[in-house]
Amino acid sequence: MSYTYVAPTLTEDNVIFQLINNQLTVLLVKRGKEPFKGQWALPGGYNAAGDTTTDAMKRVLLTKTGIKMSELRFVEQLYTFDTVARDPRGHAVSVSYMGLCRDLEPKHTASTENPVFVPVKDLPELAYDHASIVNYAHERLQSKVNYSNVVFALLPDKFTLTELQSAYEAIFGHKLDKRNFRKKFLSLELISPIKKLKREGAHRPAQLYAFNKQGLQILTRSFE
Amino acid sequence: MSYTYVAPTLTEDNVIFQLINNQLTVLLVKRGKEPFKGQWALPGGYNAAGDTTTDAMKRVLLTKTGIKMSELRFVEQLYTFDTVARDPRGHAVSVSYMGLCRDLEPKHTASTENPVFVPVKDLPELAYDHASIVNYAHERLQSKVNYSNVVFALLPDKFTLTELQSAYEAIFGHKLDKRNFRKKFLSLELISPIKKLKREGAHRPAQLYAFNKQGLQILTRSFE
Repeated sequence: MSYTYVAPTLTEDNVIFQLINNQLTVLLVKRGKEPFKGQWALPGGYNAAGDTTTDAMKRVLLTKTGIKMSELRFVEQLYTFDTVARDPRGHAVSVSYMGLCRDLEPKHTASTENPVFVPVKDLPELAYDHASIVNYAHERLQSKVNYSNVVFALLPDKFTLTELQSAYEAIFGHKLDKRNFRKKFLSLELISPIKKLKREGAHRPAQLYAFNKQGLQILTRSFE
Repeated sequence: MSYTYVAPTLTEDNVIFQLINNQLTVLLVKRGKEPFKGQWALPGGYNAAGDTTTDAMKRVLLTKTGIKMSELRFVEQLYTFDTVARDPRGHAVSVSYMGLCRDLEPKHTASTENPVFVPVKDLPELAYDHASIVNYAHERLQSKVNYSNVVFALLPDKFTLTELQSAYEAIFGHKLDKRNFRKKFLSLELISPIKKLKREGAHRPAQLYAFNKQGLQILTRSFE
């Protein structure tokens, strides 16, 4: 059989979430060249032979947004998007990653203008299929905060229950019942009160909490 | 900047699980050519430009094992494996899928010998990094049966609680406490008793159950 194999282009795209002013935001860059010149996009780039997708991720984030992968507090492979028509230049398959962070300030770099965190509920039109990639990542995050402690990656080390609830509300996009939320969350035994209190203006100081464990904890209905 | 982009080879590998004689088994094929000629491997193949990973999956499964994608009762993208050294011919990135089925008999095809379901706890040496891909899929399945009804895809439509428990035991690789398992599982309200009973030899007939909903249901600790 005579058959010449032609590989699709491989790319790597990153969905980096951060909470800013009680809103879930995602990191975008403004494209400096065609296709989609001048449009907003996820920071992404080519993944060449010899580069693992994680190598590509590190390089892309740093060169396009000035952010080091090690500054992310949680990162995981999200999904590989492969529809043939997603790039007008030809078939490009994109391995995407989701990252969570806090207090990160992207930097202008030589290769992009305006890397910036934009509220997810108020996204501009995005290049390629990036709107659906953001959507997929948002759904993954919404599901993951229901079966893990992953919200730790978006919060300060010490936080009040109000801050915790507000993080969940930002992720879900709507308000939650305070009593229900506290009862359910505290029953998971993921967090403990710490001695220090947080004083907010003239109010009674609020109890601060911290996660019991560093890193990801998965909560499942174990049958074992 | 002068820079010629060379894409890695893109491949597609499938981890297809099935229960046979109360054991979790995975579909393997014997490689007919180099590299790893004569060794067992996951059914996989090239993913060319113009082919989505799902197109590639359909084609690979059918040509290498005679199984149609539509015969799988559950399928999802598993992970994209990308270590540079995984293929001795050069950098190949593999998008992998996990499929679950029951009562499937793979067929000899022109391109492979002996497609066969082999017990996961007794795997032969596998080509490439396929042992770690199977391992990753097995862990995904173990975790997924704890937060969803996905075990439906491995069971007959009507099953006894003994068959259900035995499926979980095959997936976890060890025995479970009968009383605990039944209590926990029934509390999830995923299954209901049906009128027909199953007569097993001279024993008292066993109650049959069915899942309440067709398709995947995710169980999470919703805060909403």
